[in-house]
Amino acid sequence: MYFASDNAGPAHPKVLEALVAANTGYAMGYGADPIMDEVRAMVRDLFDAPQAAVYLTATGTAANAILLATLANPWDTIFCAPMAHIQEDECNAPEFYSNAKLTLVPATNAKMTPDALRAAMLAEQTRGVHGPQRGPVSITQVTEKGTVHTVAEIRALAEVAHECGSKVHLDGARFCNALVALGCSAAEMTWKSGVDVVSFGGTKNGLMGVEACVIFDPKLAWEFELRRKRGGHLFSKHRYLSAQMKAYMTDDLWHDMATAANAACQRLADGLRGYNSAELLFEPEANMIFVRLPRRDHQRLMAAGAVYYTWDGDPAVGDPDEPLTARLVTDWSMTQDGVDQFLQILRS
Amino acid sequence: MYFASDNAGPAHPKVLEALVAANTGYAMGYGADPIMDEVRAMVRDLFDAPQAAVYLTATGTAANAILLATLANPWDTIFCAPMAHIQEDECNAPEFYSNAKLTLVPATNAKMTPDALRAAMLAEQTRGVHGPQRGPVSITQVTEKGTVHTVAEIRALAEVAHECGSKVHLDGARFCNALVALGCSAAEMTWKSGVDVVSFGGTKNGLMGVEACVIFDPKLAWEFELRRKRGGHLFSKHRYLSAQMKAYMTDDLWHDMATAANAACQRLADGLRGYNSAELLFEPEANMIFVRLPRRDHQRLMAAGAVYYTWDGDPAVGDPDEPLTARLVTDWSMTQDGVDQFLQILRS
Amino acid sequence: MYFASDNAGPAHPKVLEALVAANTGYAMGYGADPIMDEVRAMVRDLFDAPQAAVYLTATGTAANAILLATLANPWDTIFCAPMAHIQEDECNAPEFYSNAKLTLVPATNAKMTPDALRAAMLAEQTRGVHGPQRGPVSITQVTEKGTVHTVAEIRALAEVAHECGSKVHLDGARFCNALVALGCSAAEMTWKSGVDVVSFGGTKNGLMGVEACVIFDPKLAWEFELRRKRGGHLFSKHRYLSAQMKAYMTDDLWHDMATAANAACQRLADGLRGYNSAELLFEPEANMIFVRLPRRDHQRLMAAGAVYYTWDGDPAVGDPDEPLTARLVTDWSMTQDGVDQFLQILRS
Amino acid sequence: MYFASDNAGPAHPKVLEALVAANTGYAMGYGADPIMDEVRAMVRDLFDAPQAAVYLTATGTAANAILLATLANPWDTIFCAPMAHIQEDECNAPEFYSNAKLTLVPATNAKMTPDALRAAMLAEQTRGVHGPQRGPVSITQVTEKGTVHTVAEIRALAEVAHECGSKVHLDGARFCNALVALGCSAAEMTWKSGVDVVSFGGTKNGLMGVEACVIFDPKLAWEFELRRKRGGHLFSKHRYLSAQMKAYMTDDLWHDMATAANAACQRLADGLRGYNSAELLFEPEANMIFVRLPRRDHQRLMAAGAVYYTWDGDPAVGDPDEPLTARLVTDWSMTQDGVDQFLQILRS
Repeated sequence: MYFASDNAGPAHPKVLEALVAANTGYAMGYGADPIMDEVRAMVRDLFDAPQAAVYLTATGTAANAILLATLANPWDTIFCAPMAHIQEDECNAPEFYSNAKLTLVPATNAKMTPDALRAAMLAEQTRGVHGPQRGPVSITQVTEKGTVHTVAEIRALAEVAHECGSKVHLDGARFCNALVALGCSAAEMTWKSGVDVVSFGGTKNGLMGVEACVIFDPKLAWEFELRRKRGGHLFSKHRYLSAQMKAYMTDDLWHDMATAANAACQRLADGLRGYNSAELLFEPEANMIFVRLPRRDHQRLMAAGAVYYTWDGDPAVGDPDEPLTARLVTDWSMTQDGVDQFLQILRS
Repeated sequence: MYFASDNAGPAHPKVLEALVAANTGYAMGYGADPIMDEVRAMVRDLFDAPQAAVYLTATGTAANAILLATLANPWDTIFCAPMAHIQEDECNAPEFYSNAKLTLVPATNAKMTPDALRAAMLAEQTRGVHGPQRGPVSITQVTEKGTVHTVAEIRALAEVAHECGSKVHLDGARFCNALVALGCSAAEMTWKSGVDVVSFGGTKNGLMGVEACVIFDPKLAWEFELRRKRGGHLFSKHRYLSAQMKAYMTDDLWHDMATAANAACQRLADGLRGYNSAELLFEPEANMIFVRLPRRDHQRLMAAGAVYYTWDGDPAVGDPDEPLTARLVTDWSMTQDGVDQFLQILRS
Repeated sequence: MYFASDNAGPAHPKVLEALVAANTGYAMGYGADPIMDEVRAMVRDLFDAPQAAVYLTATGTAANAILLATLANPWDTIFCAPMAHIQEDECNAPEFYSNAKLTLVPATNAKMTPDALRAAMLAEQTRGVHGPQRGPVSITQVTEKGTVHTVAEIRALAEVAHECGSKVHLDGARFCNALVALGCSAAEMTWKSGVDVVSFGGTKNGLMGVEACVIFDPKLAWEFELRRKRGGHLFSKHRYLSAQMKAYMTDDLWHDMATAANAACQRLADGLRGYNSAELLFEPEANMIFVRLPRRDHQRLMAAGAVYYTWDGDPAVGDPDEPLTARLVTDWSMTQDGVDQFLQILRS
Repeated sequence: MYFASDNAGPAHPKVLEALVAANTGYAMGYGADPIMDEVRAMVRDLFDAPQAAVYLTATGTAANAILLATLANPWDTIFCAPMAHIQEDECNAPEFYSNAKLTLVPATNAKMTPDALRAAMLAEQTRGVHGPQRGPVSITQVTEKGTVHTVAEIRALAEVAHECGSKVHLDGARFCNALVALGCSAAEMTWKSGVDVVSFGGTKNGLMGVEACVIFDPKLAWEFELRRKRGGHLFSKHRYLSAQMKAYMTDDLWHDMATAANAACQRLADGLRGYNSAELLFEPEANMIFVRLPRRDHQRLMAAGAVYYTWDGDPAVGDPDEPLTARLVTDWSMTQDGVDQFLQILRS
C-alpha cells in the first residue's frame, strides 16, 4: 500500500537484466557506446522523428533544466503553470541552468489555458528592455495534479507560444502515463502539436534513473551537449543509462508499465468514488489522485500501513472529521491486491 | 588491450548483484533509503570521521563542482594545477556551480608545490576589492599524470591553504588507487592532513557511476544538499546509488579493485621500462602511464587491437620514428594477459 | 507639462555646483575620496545609525540587485509585490545578481499584506530541499502605484519576515517622497521598523544618478563591496558620486525636493478630483498618480504638449469615450504653473 | 606630483560645462535623449563606422564585461594576457557577466604574441565537449604595462582569432592614449585590423565616468542592450552620460587630453633615463611607466609629496639600496612643473 510516489517502487526486472547484459567488456564512454546508437534509433522511431537529437540524463530535473536553458536566454521569462514541477520542486534548477525567470500562468485543472497564456505573454513584452523578454513555454504532461492535456490542448498552447515567437518544452516526467491515457502517438502529443523539446521520462515509470531529452530541431543539439557536460550530467559509463532506456523501448516495456500504473489508479479512483466521505479534487486521468478524506480515515489507513503524503494538515493530530487532502500515486508495480487492500481498510 | 580509460571497463559483478538485491519493494527516495544509512556509516568508518556528512552523486564532475561551490564564494579564485581535471575536462562546471574562477598554480610532476601555491595565493590578494579573493585549493589525487601526492605533500599544501584562510578540496576520482599506492589510511590522506572535503571516486574504480562527497565539517552539509538538488543531482530512486556504494565498501571491494588496477599498471610499466624505445614521462605510481614511443610502435599496437589515446600527433600518419605520447590507463578488470599481450606486440 | 517620469527632469543646480566644486586636484578613487567620508557621516546621521555601512551606486537597479544578492542565497526566493520594480522593470537584474527567484505576494493598493506575506512564506518552505528556500522580503516605498506604506505597515511586514528567518530590503527609489509624506524619521521608516537594508534613492529626486545603499548590519559590508565591484558598479572617480550625495544631504536638499514633488502631485490630484470624468485609481500619497480619463481628454492634453504614459490602450486611436489610465509623475522641478496649465487644458 | 592613476585627476572643465548645459528641462531617459543621437553620430564618425552600434556605460569594468558577455558563450574561454585588467582587476566581472572562463596567454611586453595565442587556442579545443570552447580574444590597448600594440600587432592577433572562429574585443580603457601614440585612425586600430567590439575609454582620459561601447556588427546590439539593463548599467538620466561623451568628441577634446598625458609621460621617461639608478622595465609608449628605483629614492620622493604605487615591497621599511618598482601614470592634467618637480627631487 505504497502510494507516496511513483519514484519509490522498484525498477522493472528487465531493466536490471539489461544492465547485467551490458556489463561485459570495454565500451566507449560519454554517449559513444553502441547501445546508445540503438536507443537513438528507437526513440526516433517512437517519436516518428528521424532527425531528432536524443540524449539521456539521469534525473528529470536535469532534463528539464538543461532543455529549458537550451531554449531560453538569461533575460527571458519561462511560462508555466503555478504548480509546475519546475516551479515548485526543483530548488531553482531551471533558473540556475538558464538564468531566466519563471512567469506563473493561471491554470485550470493544473493546465494553463490558451487565453491565460496569451495574456501573460502579451503582458510580458510591453516594457522593452526594462522587462524580461518572452522565453519558452513549459507544459507539464501529466500535470502535477494528475490531469492530462488533450492533444488539442497542447496544440492550442503551442500555437500561442509560436505566435509570440517562443518555443515549447514538454516536461514529460510521466509522458508514458499520458500517452497511454490519450491513446495517441508520441508524435501527435509532441512535434505534431508544436512541441519543440521533450523531457521523456523513464524514472517514474520503472527505470532506475534515466530520462531521454528529445530535441526536434538538431541545430540545438550541440548547445545541449555543452550544457549537459557543464552541468556534470554527462556520464562517463554511459552504457548503463543506454541499457536502461533500451530495455524501456524494447517491446514497448514503457507502454506495459504505464498501462499497469494507470489501471491501478483507475481501480483506486473507482473505489474512492464509491466511498461516501471521499472527494476527488481532480479527475484522475493517469496515475495520480488527489482525494479529500476525513482525518479519521487517514488515521485508519496509515495505522494499517498505507504510505502517502498529505499536505494540508497533520493526519495524526486534530479533529477526526476534518478533511485532509491525500496525494495517491500508483506505479507500474502496484498490484490489484494493494489497491483493494487500501480500499477495504478505508471502508472497514 | 583496452587502455583508453578506467571508465571504459565493466562494473564489478558484485555491484550488479547489489543493484538486483536492492530492487525489491518500495523505498524512500532522495537519500532517505535505508541502504544510504549503511553507506553513511561505512564511509564514516573508512575515513574515521564519525561526524562527516556523506552524500552521493553519479558523476565526478558533479562531485567536484558542487563541493567546490560549497567552499567558494562567487568572487573567489580556486587554486589548482594547470592539468587538473576541473580545469581541463569539465567544460567550466566548477565555474558554473561556484561562479568563481580558477588560478593555475605551476606544478612539478603534476603536483603543485607548496612554494608555488604560496606565491600564487599571496599574489592573489594584493588588490583588495579589485582582484578575485582567495578561495579553496583543489588537489587532484591521483594526479592527471598518474603521480601520487605523498601524505606529507598533501599536508604541506593544506598548510599553505589554511595559513591563507582557505579550505582544501581533494579531487579523488582515483582516490582508492592512491590509497593503495600509499598504503596509508583514508583519514591520513584527508582530514589528518588538512583536507576539508573529498570527492571519493567510485566510477573509475569499478562502479557504474557513483562518487561519495565527504564533508568533514557538517556545518557545510545543508548548503551542499541545496546545491546538489539545484544542480539536478539529487536522485529520486537514490537506493540504486546507495547499493553501488555499499557494494564498494563491503569487504573492501574498492581495495581489491584498486589493487588489481595498480598491479596491472606496474606490470605494464615494468615491461615498458625494459623496452628500448619507450620513455616514461612520469613515474607511474597508481594506474596510469604516459609513455613516448615511436610512431611505428603505435601503429603496430593499434593494428593489433590495442586501444588508447595519443595527444601529440596522429599515430596513423607521419614519420615512423617520430615519438608520440600515449596515455595508458588500467582498470580493475585489466588482466595479466591483456598487459602481457600488449608488451609482446610492442616487442615483436 | 512633463509627467512621464521623475527621472526625466533636470538635476538640482546645487548638484551641479557640487560637481564643479569637487572637480579640483587629485582624489583617491573607488570610494576612498574625502567627500565620501562626509557622505557616510551624513547618511548615518539621517538614519540615526552610527554603525551602518553606506555605499553609493549610480543606478537604482544596481542598488536593489546588489543589496538583494547580499541578503539572498542562490537557492532562495525573494518575496515582493507583483508590481514591484524588481519584478517588472529590471530585466532579471535581481535574479542575475542573486541567482535567487522571486515569489509574487498578492498586494492591496500595491502593498503586500502581512497575511498574504505570511501565507506565501509558509507555503514556500514545505518541500525541504526540493523547493526554493525562504529569502529576503523586498518592500517598495513609495510603491509603484504611488501609495505609501505607513510605518506600522512596514513594521508588520518586517515582523512576518523576521518570524520566518528572513531579512528585509526596502526599495526606496522614492524614499524621500515617502518620508515627506509620512512625516516620520528615516530611522522610523527603516531599522526601527525592522528593515535591514535600504536602497536610498537620489536619482528620481533631483540627482543626476546616485543611490545610497544603507546596510544596518556592518557584517554584510564586505560582501556588498565585492558584489558591487564584480558587477562593475564601483566607480573609479567616485568623488563625482559622493559630491552629488553630499549636495543631497546638505541643508536637507532631499527634503526640499521631495516636498516640492509631493506638493505638485497633491495640487494635481486636487484638480483631478474636481474633474468629473477623472477617476483616481489609488489614493495619491507621494508624487505619482494613476488616473482614468476618457480618450478625448488624453487627446486634448497631448495635443497641447502634455507628456505622460498610458498603458491600457492607444490614446490616439479609438472610441473617444473609452477611459484609459494615465500615470502622472511629478518631480522636484515641476512648477505650480505646469500643473495648473495641465488642469486648465483638461477642463477646457 | 600625483602619479598613482589616471583616474585620480579631475575631469576637464569642458566636461563640467557640458553637464551644466545639459541640465535644463525634461529629456527622455535610458539613452533616448537627443544628446545621445549626436554622440552616436560622432563616435561613428570617429571610427568611420556608420553602422556601428554605440552605447555608453559609466565604468570600464561594465563596458568590458558586458561586451565580452555579448561575444562569449557560458562554456567558452576568453583569451587574454596574464596581466589584463579583465583578469587582474575586475573581481571576476567578466566571468560574472559571461559565465565563461579566462585562458591566460603568455605575453611579451604585456602583449600576447600571435604564436602564443595560436598555441593557446589550438590547445583549447582538443577535448570536444569536455573542455571549454574557444571564446573571444581580448586585447588591452594600452597594455597594463604601458606598452602599445602596433596596428600590425593587433591585426596579427585578430587574424589568429578569426582563423579559430573567435571574435576580438579591444579593452581600450586608454584607447585615446594609444591612438595618439600610434598616430593612426580609430578605424585602423579597430575594425580595419579585425577588432569586433571596443571599450572606448573616457574615464581615464578626463571624463567623470563614461565609456563608449562600440559594436561594429549591429546584429549584436539588442543582446548588448539587454545585458546592460540586466546588469543595472542602463542609466535613467542618460543625458548626463551623453553630455560627457559629447564634450569628449567635440573639437577632439579626447585628442588634446591624451596628447597632454602622453607628453607628460615622455618628459618623465626622458628624465628618468638620465638618472643613474633608474631602470625602466618597459618602453613607455603612452602614459604609464614602470621604473625600478632604490628604496632611498622612493623615500625621498614620497617624503616630498609624490604619490604613486609600488608593488614589490614596502618603500618605508628595508634596505635603502634595494630596488622597488614604481608605477607612474600621467593624466591629462599633469603639468610640466609637476613632472619637473618630481625629477628634481629624485636627482637632489
